[in-house]
Amino acid sequence: MPALLPTPFTGTVTWLGRVTDSTATLRAETLTATQLAFGGIDGDCHGGLTRPACVRTKAQYPQGTEIRNVRQLSVLSAEDLDAIAADMGLDAIDPAWLGASMVIQGIPDFTHVPPSSRLQMPSGASITIDMENRPCVYPGREIEKDRAGFGPKFKPAAQDRRGVTAWVEREGPVAVGDTVTLHIPDQPIWAHLPDA
Amino acid sequence: MPALLPTPFTGTVTWLGRVTDSTATLRAETLTATQLAFGGIDGDCHGGLTRPACVRTKAQYPQGTEIRNVRQLSVLSAEDLDAIAADMGLDAIDPAWLGASMVIQGIPDFTHVPPSSRLQMPSGASITIDMENRPCVYPGREIEKDRAGFGPKFKPAAQDRRGVTAWVEREGPVAVGDTVTLHIPDQPIWAHLPDA
Repeated sequence: MPALLPTPFTGTVTWLGRVTDSTATLRAETLTATQLAFGGIDGDCHGGLTRPACVRTKAQYPQGTEIRNVRQLSVLSAEDLDAIAADMGLDAIDPAWLGASMVIQGIPDFTHVPPSSRLQMPSGASITIDMENRPCVYPGREIEKDRAGFGPKFKPAAQDRRGVTAWVEREGPVAVGDTVTLHIPDQPIWAHLPDA
Repeated sequence: MPALLPTPFTGTVTWLGRVTDSTATLRAETLTATQLAFGGIDGDCHGGLTRPACVRTKAQYPQGTEIRNVRQLSVLSAEDLDAIAADMGLDAIDPAWLGASMVIQGIPDFTHVPPSSRLQMPSGASITIDMENRPCVYPGREIEKDRAGFGPKFKPAAQDRRGVTAWVEREGPVAVGDTVTLHIPDQPIWAHLPDA
């Protein structure tokens, strides 16, 4: 029996974007459709099969070490973005402020879907979720440019709502409006997890 | 805060191996040390950055579809192998029969460590665990050649003990005797898991 199991959980792609040069701006440009390649989203500066280790992996690797790139895509849910906006006192969060790759509507508690889950597109393309993403201060700086005074509110409001990072497992196209299906590892919870 | 967390759980590498040509034999040759590259273990036919989808991913991909290779390595625990042997009525299981890549001693319930966990070697090399592996009949055929009558006992005895599949996140050497450290995703359990 395979260990990767399709679930009844589906979502709709409501937004796609890419960041072409993060040294110029962290803000994403909006796309209506794109190609998912083994290196990530075409033209996205977060792409590549490997990447230099950053501060997020400092407990594992010296910064700059060449490691496999499990952060090709930043995927969030529309519901989490709405909750962040509500907590910040904003009408909405523009995913472009976050340098996001994809927004999905319809999968509950999306930020905490199981690590190694897959999201499959109607084209057959799929992405593997590494794990939860954690908020940092940079999106707040982008928000501050458009909504002065609100930038610092981002990081605390985005706790447990920052979505996931992912990489391309099978290549193919994806478009806004696509229905995506969640596949999860079908295995017991490890009995030795530290107390949360 | 990073989401990938070192744990106090460590293990010792007690065995290393590779399968150079699975069309000739599924049995692994034993190694005392090897190099972990982004494509897997040097000279192992299970290596490669991508692989053709197999029957294990038939719920996701037509067989033969090019997908990223999350099955570069087959890693098992010495404790799980001992339990399989006991259930089968054998003194021991030779990991070579299973086409294994690595055996580790000291991490409890190893087959069910969280998906997207990492195992890091003293050299800094690390592997990412995709998820639980599931037993199939092929190791039983190898066992049958050496221990006639015992082959069919493998698959049921290996349930929940077949270890995990993994791929190389950071390159570097590993040797028998190395101490490996388990890193796990530090995130809550998804609230919508199907009933086990």
